[in-house]
Amino acid sequence: MSHAVIDAGTADDPVVPTPVRGARPYLVGLVGTGVGPSLTPPLHMAEAAELGLGYVYRTIDLAERGIAPERIGEVLGWARDLGFDALNVTHPCKQLVLPHLDAVDPLAAALGAVNTVLLTPDGAVGHNTDTTGFEAALRSELDDAPRGDVVLVGAGGAGAAVADALLRCGTERLTVVDVAPGRARDLAGSLAGRHHREVTSAGTADLTDLVPAADGVVHCTPTGMAEHPGTAFPVDLLRPATWVADVVYRPLETALLTAARAAGCRTLDGGHMAVHQAVGAFELITGRRPDTARMLAHLRALVRAD
Amino acid sequence: MSHAVIDAGTADDPVVPTPVRGARPYLVGLVGTGVGPSLTPPLHMAEAAELGLGYVYRTIDLAERGIAPERIGEVLGWARDLGFDALNVTHPCKQLVLPHLDAVDPLAAALGAVNTVLLTPDGAVGHNTDTTGFEAALRSELDDAPRGDVVLVGAGGAGAAVADALLRCGTERLTVVDVAPGRARDLAGSLAGRHHREVTSAGTADLTDLVPAADGVVHCTPTGMAEHPGTAFPVDLLRPATWVADVVYRPLETALLTAARAAGCRTLDGGHMAVHQAVGAFELITGRRPDTARMLAHLRALVRAD
Repeated sequence: MSHAVIDAGTADDPVVPTPVRGARPYLVGLVGTGVGPSLTPPLHMAEAAELGLGYVYRTIDLAERGIAPERIGEVLGWARDLGFDALNVTHPCKQLVLPHLDAVDPLAAALGAVNTVLLTPDGAVGHNTDTTGFEAALRSELDDAPRGDVVLVGAGGAGAAVADALLRCGTERLTVVDVAPGRARDLAGSLAGRHHREVTSAGTADLTDLVPAADGVVHCTPTGMAEHPGTAFPVDLLRPATWVADVVYRPLETALLTAARAAGCRTLDGGHMAVHQAVGAFELITGRRPDTARMLAHLRALVRAD
Repeated sequence: MSHAVIDAGTADDPVVPTPVRGARPYLVGLVGTGVGPSLTPPLHMAEAAELGLGYVYRTIDLAERGIAPERIGEVLGWARDLGFDALNVTHPCKQLVLPHLDAVDPLAAALGAVNTVLLTPDGAVGHNTDTTGFEAALRSELDDAPRGDVVLVGAGGAGAAVADALLRCGTERLTVVDVAPGRARDLAGSLAGRHHREVTSAGTADLTDLVPAADGVVHCTPTGMAEHPGTAFPVDLLRPATWVADVVYRPLETALLTAARAAGCRTLDGGHMAVHQAVGAFELITGRRPDTARMLAHLRALVRAD
């Protein structure tokens, strides 16, 4: 008579090796502050459903949960322990997360910022699909546009990611403009050192001369969003030969892009970068290539329904 | 000219209030040791798919992750912060989790063990669907069977959950048997105090007299599982009038149940408790009533494929 009394593996605790089951679904989170209303979760989940993949994407709002951004390394550990496949990381953690990673993709390392962390069996691996996303958007929509002189307006995190992409895409001379001259100078210096290209900084007053002479202008400030109406510089400076890209995507049609189109400029709206950023993350996480056009249509529907 | 330079809400960080999106999918975990091969995840996820619900169910193996079971309160906090809707909790955390809950269902509180924690906006609420699951299985399959004298073999966690269910289902006299006499005595004492019924304890040697005289015998030890072959007591003690329930469900047909059927006994296999336990948790988590027969068929397929 064998009678060992333990209660694991009995009906209250079903434990069976190698069961039949479907493909393991994906579990992904977005960590940062103010992420609650992000469009990234529905974008990822709808595309996964189209591809027949199980996919849950959660927002993890640090401010709302009372977690200091400096504890991002701990959050990473929790996510790993609880079975997350990956995290998207956003403000204010894109730099803070770096010391907690086991490996960093070279483009993300060069930029010093990570927006996608894969939680692999070998450790946490950082990528940056903001910069690759803008690059993909530019190549997709304005691949033939001249890139001799490009003006970047806004030297924050988005501006830094876009600047790297612009320089990888053959921009010959880049001018970084910011209301904070020191920030523009720092970013320009870092870019020039890493890319061995002509990168200079300028103040917003200089836009009067810079914009009319530019092949392209990329706007990387929140101006043009509903809560920041207007344009970051006078739109009568735009000439028809200058292409204009905006990273704001809500609305997709910003005052800047409306004016640019009225002036005869080619334009690239922020939806493209938003979607290519998500496409890049999705592909890293699942190994499946999503349908970019479908995700773009979905993003436009989401923004319109807003 | 408005030119605030921050990078939230731009294309690298899509933030849009009130977007269009599908129903929020569920995120659930199973916390314990040795949970990797559990059948609960595929059971829940397949049923959710049948009901058109997004549902990711992850196993969180504390031993594998190097997390002491005493840290279950922290794990609960991580799960809440990362957006889990609920956790199933199993060995060795069913009691340990209690002090970390904000509220406990009365049946779980009486039993002193929780296997399901809902992470609600109002806090963590504990339930026990092991005990309600055995009750539902018994009422579903052996509702008309006599419950004057019932013998419970195995006074561990599964036995305790089953004992409470037996007493709620009208068992008049319950005898708790365990290889560890102290454990049988403790459980019997606790049950008698709470249920105001005749609950006694006995040693395994007493089964020679107890089994032939019982209306029903419930087996709650791991004996009969692949790694614990055999039966917990000599099967020639079984009489045709005695019903026999087993909580082991792998295999579904244990040596005990084979012998019981050969002896002419009515039987209840462990698959019923396993499924009703999952049905209860699923309903608590989603508010949707799953199809018990479909889940039972799925469990049987999973066990057969094993």
